[in-house]
Amino acid sequence: MAVKEPVIFTEKDEMRKWSRSMRSQGKTIGLVPTMGYLHQGHLSLVEEAHKHAEVVVVSIYVNPGQFSPSEDLSTYPSDFHGDILKLKSVPRGVDAVFAPKNLYDYRENKKSEIMLIWKIRILTRKGWFHVWRRGEWGTKQGLELRDWREDILCGKNRPVFFRGVATIVTKLFNIVEPDVAVFGKKDYHQWRIIQRMVRDLDFGIEIVGSDIVRDSDGLALSSRNVHLSPEEREKALSISRSLLKAKSDAKIGLVNCKELTDTVVQTITQAGGRIDYAEIVEQESLEAVEEIKNPVAFCIAAWFGKVRLIDNIEISI
Amino acid sequence: MAVKEPVIFTEKDEMRKWSRSMRSQGKTIGLVPTMGYLHQGHLSLVEEAHKHAEVVVVSIYVNPGQFSPSEDLSTYPSDFHGDILKLKSVPRGVDAVFAPKNLYDYRENKKSEIMLIWKIRILTRKGWFHVWRRGEWGTKQGLELRDWREDILCGKNRPVFFRGVATIVTKLFNIVEPDVAVFGKKDYHQWRIIQRMVRDLDFGIEIVGSDIVRDSDGLALSSRNVHLSPEEREKALSISRSLLKAKSDAKIGLVNCKELTDTVVQTITQAGGRIDYAEIVEQESLEAVEEIKNPVAFCIAAWFGKVRLIDNIEISI
Repeated sequence: MAVKEPVIFTEKDEMRKWSRSMRSQGKTIGLVPTMGYLHQGHLSLVEEAHKHAEVVVVSIYVNPGQFSPSEDLSTYPSDFHGDILKLKSVPRGVDAVFAPKNLYDYRENKKSEIMLIWKIRILTRKGWFHVWRRGEWGTKQGLELRDWREDILCGKNRPVFFRGVATIVTKLFNIVEPDVAVFGKKDYHQWRIIQRMVRDLDFGIEIVGSDIVRDSDGLALSSRNVHLSPEEREKALSISRSLLKAKSDAKIGLVNCKELTDTVVQTITQAGGRIDYAEIVEQESLEAVEEIKNPVAFCIAAWFGKVRLIDNIEISI
Repeated sequence: MAVKEPVIFTEKDEMRKWSRSMRSQGKTIGLVPTMGYLHQGHLSLVEEAHKHAEVVVVSIYVNPGQFSPSEDLSTYPSDFHGDILKLKSVPRGVDAVFAPKNLYDYRENKKSEIMLIWKIRILTRKGWFHVWRRGEWGTKQGLELRDWREDILCGKNRPVFFRGVATIVTKLFNIVEPDVAVFGKKDYHQWRIIQRMVRDLDFGIEIVGSDIVRDSDGLALSSRNVHLSPEEREKALSISRSLLKAKSDAKIGLVNCKELTDTVVQTITQAGGRIDYAEIVEQESLEAVEEIKNPVAFCIAAWFGKVRLIDNIEISI
């Protein structure tokens, strides 16, 4: 079978025009938003999108709006050429790739809104490595979500994170105008917030959550895993292992959330991880629960070295 | 010519389905968002919409999200039957009316999100009068605009106003999915904020601003004018008269904004009005200016009795 060559768009008007022409031909459009540096987890989102739509668009854009100045925008990995090759390897490939240069460039001259972002290519033994640099964090404008539980889990201590996510997802929705968008359940909080945003703002888009893809050792796939040393990686397995253990404990009747989280925190801390949060929450409302009765998600974020990893597991008893 | 009977939708899914079927027939869609109790100003927006799109949708929805508890949601006038008759009187009429009951009803049982709104019909000598009552202001969720000059002019001291406007306009855009939306320049600040929102969030929608329609005496048409007594109405003419005077003063070289606003404030105050704001701002950025050099808008809000009126004039010298 010939490998499908995706059309690559960098301009939003061209992207929207293509989408509208697809829709006028009666085709449904699936969108998979990514920040690039794709791995098998992303490719599984593409496969999921093919189940729900006739043509599939993958967006590749490292959104500066969801990083705060102290975060790792500057070291977020990128490999556009490799990404395209990977997308071509998926059964049925992808139909279009949307890779805009800057979605916040409004060609205004106002100092307070100028954002300086540039990319440096560094030649390493593994080949070219791309690094984003930024002079000023400038995406102060954007959507603020109100009362959307944006200040817990992945939003705790990161006031700009979900504002940035909501803004960029809204922009991508408005540019690509898809029928379906697929998000990974690995970013559980993000997936639920986007579901809620789509409901509250009446987007005519179906949001599909796709299961976490793990390496054979259990580590949830993430673009950030590349920054883990082999030792850190080994230690980081404590996350998925302790989550699995919590699930089986819950299944045999240990449903006290404080006890379950204490155990997980202890396991990860002993392995050398630094817990950001470890919480058992109701699946839709994301409200913390004391005892597992209804379906919950056990969500964890933890640092290993300089890498912040997230993972979660859904538990129904 | 037979008068066109608009299709009336109260359910958002039906509305979107109709829009998509129009679009799939290659027709462009124009949207005119209103809060009902239509007057000639609204009808001029419909006429403007016909210039830009092949089919025209008018939405009628009093958005509770843009009123704060102290404001006049409860007395906002309504006359659905009369509105439909007026829309039929416009040349080419309208193709569809979207009149949802409640766009914030997500069928959740969470107390904190319940909003109680009911309508009372009162028989007066002038006929039935409809009054909205509300138990709890419940639209806490929504879009927050950041750094969009949402805290000046019509947003000053009204923290929920533009959040409410942005949320409802986004919802309407996502339900109706129009190609063009027409807004009155009477709500100058709102019009500019929506233009900016469309740019910043990449909506594929053209925003058209339509000129203010005035009564023969100069008063800008507003649904709220119905609450003015004949005496208040006469006094309220000081707004449009002083704005016209300011424009002609500017044309002959009086370009100092403090002097111009002082004169206007004095005129309106002497007529018995209570100024909410009177500001000369740059047309796009809405930034206050000291001297008129580039095109500006002179924007005024003032109370006459219990009625808050707004008006403005664009000045280019």
